[in-house]
Amino acid sequence: MSLTLCAAQAIVSATLAEARARSAKPLAVIVLDAGAHPIAFAREDGATMFRHDIARAKAVGALGMGDDTRVLAERAKGNPAFFQSVSVAVGGNIAFSPGGVLIRHDGAVIGAVGVSGDTGDCDEECAFAGIRAAGFNLETDK
Amino acid sequence: MSLTLCAAQAIVSATLAEARARSAKPLAVIVLDAGAHPIAFAREDGATMFRHDIARAKAVGALGMGDDTRVLAERAKGNPAFFQSVSVAVGGNIAFSPGGVLIRHDGAVIGAVGVSGDTGDCDEECAFAGIRAAGFNLETDK
Amino acid sequence: MSLTLCAAQAIVSATLAEARARSAKPLAVIVLDAGAHPIAFAREDGATMFRHDIARAKAVGALGMGDDTRVLAERAKGNPAFFQSVSVAVGGNIAFSPGGVLIRHDGAVIGAVGVSGDTGDCDEECAFAGIRAAGFNLETDK
Amino acid sequence: MSLTLCAAQAIVSATLAEARARSAKPLAVIVLDAGAHPIAFAREDGATMFRHDIARAKAVGALGMGDDTRVLAERAKGNPAFFQSVSVAVGGNIAFSPGGVLIRHDGAVIGAVGVSGDTGDCDEECAFAGIRAAGFNLETDK
Repeated sequence: MSLTLCAAQAIVSATLAEARARSAKPLAVIVLDAGAHPIAFAREDGATMFRHDIARAKAVGALGMGDDTRVLAERAKGNPAFFQSVSVAVGGNIAFSPGGVLIRHDGAVIGAVGVSGDTGDCDEECAFAGIRAAGFNLETDK
Repeated sequence: MSLTLCAAQAIVSATLAEARARSAKPLAVIVLDAGAHPIAFAREDGATMFRHDIARAKAVGALGMGDDTRVLAERAKGNPAFFQSVSVAVGGNIAFSPGGVLIRHDGAVIGAVGVSGDTGDCDEECAFAGIRAAGFNLETDK
Repeated sequence: MSLTLCAAQAIVSATLAEARARSAKPLAVIVLDAGAHPIAFAREDGATMFRHDIARAKAVGALGMGDDTRVLAERAKGNPAFFQSVSVAVGGNIAFSPGGVLIRHDGAVIGAVGVSGDTGDCDEECAFAGIRAAGFNLETDK
Repeated sequence: MSLTLCAAQAIVSATLAEARARSAKPLAVIVLDAGAHPIAFAREDGATMFRHDIARAKAVGALGMGDDTRVLAERAKGNPAFFQSVSVAVGGNIAFSPGGVLIRHDGAVIGAVGVSGDTGDCDEECAFAGIRAAGFNLETDK
């Protein structure tokens, strides 16, 4: 199953609805397909210009390594030299902060969401809400 | 006046509605602010992966040169060596085909739309429809 | 259906077998998944060092634009300014010569082969042979 | 003596056979010639997309510095600022984790293997098995 534009837009809308419910800082949210190519993106009014690039780096990084960026951020703390070299090796397509979350369907990774703008924890909670609202399960829902 | 996410999403929706009314090939559409940073993006199901990069290059190129890409494409035909050097000098942030259209308000450029997927002419017509539907005037509407 | 390593290696082997049957110059052949990420690659003894990059650019370009590079090469002749700008916009991930061929299964694109080393026509014939030998149909087999 | 495609493919096959014998996570393995240009590559089903880039960065880094990446990773821990600057200076063509292993013949470096997908230790053991199976000695076999 591939991720449709309709599903990706539902994720974007629900992610931003969660952000407003939490009074989060202005966010950017991107949804990528399994090959890390963009399907949908939105940047809220007032979100600064790097938010697109950071949201995308979170989502691409999660897909590239096969783990949510929360896990990658933890691993990077224990092995900074390696993960810094990975960051350069992949052309900056990774960001070590929560908010890059894999989208799974029937056990297969079909895409990823990246959120940036508030704390990593808040960004991730908004991504979780977006993914769940679009009808996909999270790893932690198992 | 700066372009809001709400206006950018209205442009995206109306651009894609026009594409479906025309039975265009699957499109990608991006809306950038005046500084060429992304506000909203959508890629229709079946649109190939370069469509994002080409749509963005059209929109950035229009902002970077101050003209719609239809005009830039015409100028590039008459002076290919110069425009090829521009293409490299700006890191690929330009594409010489119609479909990159400036968004104006009270005479000021406040952003740009980039569309890719069908012919340049069709891409541009969809962008025009999107911009008009969101309440902005086109140069040609003067 | 996603392309397996087993199928990709079958394509590589049969592509190179065809090259030897034709006494082609030493070739490089790459197989990419639908997201343009490498699955398998081989460079024959004597193939020069750019063959990897050119084979990959053919395969990525075919996926990115949704057409075999034979078609793209024809279109580029008629609109050089646009396709040169695309080449830069996509970071060199396209090459305008036959030999980049989409792999289809049940009508969906599941990957691409890129071949470089001999003439574009010969490169393409070897790619065709590789794809057919692995049990996939070509567009022209319809 | 230069590394042949036949030898490189033997290394790839034996590296992946070792990975399966160890029940390693899905791996990517690349073999480069002495000039760091790819000869052979394979990515197992389920290996994530960065595995190619990391495997290649390990192999290029080993060649570029003249040491297996296990040694480089140790050195990077003791002098992070320098090795981070190297990572950027060489365009990301290095990765500080075991699994990048030089291939030697009669005392000369004739290429390198890069493996990524499991722990660095496991990646390196698979690379060792691949190199030995193809008839080359390891530094540690002296």
